[in-house]
Amino acid sequence: MKLLEEMILREGKILPGDILKVGSFLNQQIDTKLLSAMAEEVKNLYKETTVTKILTIESSGIAFAVAAGIAMGVPVIFAKKHQSSNVDGEIYSVPVTSYTHHNTYNAVISKDYLTSEDHVLIVDDFLATGNALIGMIELVRQAGATLAGVAIEIEKGFQGGGDKLRAQGVRIESLALIDSMTDESITFR
Amino acid sequence: MKLLEEMILREGKILPGDILKVGSFLNQQIDTKLLSAMAEEVKNLYKETTVTKILTIESSGIAFAVAAGIAMGVPVIFAKKHQSSNVDGEIYSVPVTSYTHHNTYNAVISKDYLTSEDHVLIVDDFLATGNALIGMIELVRQAGATLAGVAIEIEKGFQGGGDKLRAQGVRIESLALIDSMTDESITFR
Repeated sequence: MKLLEEMILREGKILPGDILKVGSFLNQQIDTKLLSAMAEEVKNLYKETTVTKILTIESSGIAFAVAAGIAMGVPVIFAKKHQSSNVDGEIYSVPVTSYTHHNTYNAVISKDYLTSEDHVLIVDDFLATGNALIGMIELVRQAGATLAGVAIEIEKGFQGGGDKLRAQGVRIESLALIDSMTDESITFR
Repeated sequence: MKLLEEMILREGKILPGDILKVGSFLNQQIDTKLLSAMAEEVKNLYKETTVTKILTIESSGIAFAVAAGIAMGVPVIFAKKHQSSNVDGEIYSVPVTSYTHHNTYNAVISKDYLTSEDHVLIVDDFLATGNALIGMIELVRQAGATLAGVAIEIEKGFQGGGDKLRAQGVRIESLALIDSMTDESITFR
């Protein structure tokens, strides 16, 4: 998506450890006009596909998921991060290891909010190694729901998580897909 | 707001400790049609007021803040919660004690995203004792910005935080204002 790529080139900052800082328009501060345009793009990409629910994981994916949910007119559900695996009965749960924060948490959702009738679009801000996404796909599987696809704001293609899942047949639409990133330049696929 | 009050009466669950559970439509799962209607209501309530930015605190206020930001066409900024007060230079920071989680954290925002030019609408999901809100008002004050007002999804009026701030001249618009809550009934103001 041209608009997002231009914004990344203009406002993004590359930090050590392959971190792309987009705090001025996607994270700490959100440009809601850009966000709306991205949500419309997701709606358009999935217009031929049945989607009954959007799933994301707290907290950095919430803004994009809510914008997409508003654009598409479907409910949004959040997987919550629990430090302990000691959470009670009526939930789906999966352990996820965070690349950014170097820890492992359990992603959980209540069984009340995801059923085998649902067609789920998973939405998140970043896709790198794909650990959070693999966890969310597992939650969809546990519920017996159908995975409609995935929508990502920014994919770091060079970290390989997205292509591994595409090879398994998962539909992933990334609005900006970065193939390489150095201090001097960013190359989009 | 009638629509929200009806939803609270139909779907809300009252738990021990004056907890109102609204997970099925506001928290864990978000009814995006209701959320859009609430955002339009906020836009309408503040239509005579200059608003250049929406401020919320992660993570439960993000959905409502983003919806309001989209409706009003202004950027949204998030105060982040830091466990330590040992955060570096270019930030505004204030300690907040959480009623729900029985802990104290620092609410921080980068100085890049809030300036003395800004007219700030603070948006949050719940207002009870008002500690998080008082913290956000302090961040606005530190930046030398103007407080345009406050928009809340659900205020627990019987916990007094909202009325204390109204008495100090803060404009607070709560879309549902609960005056009393028992196992059998909820009374709105």
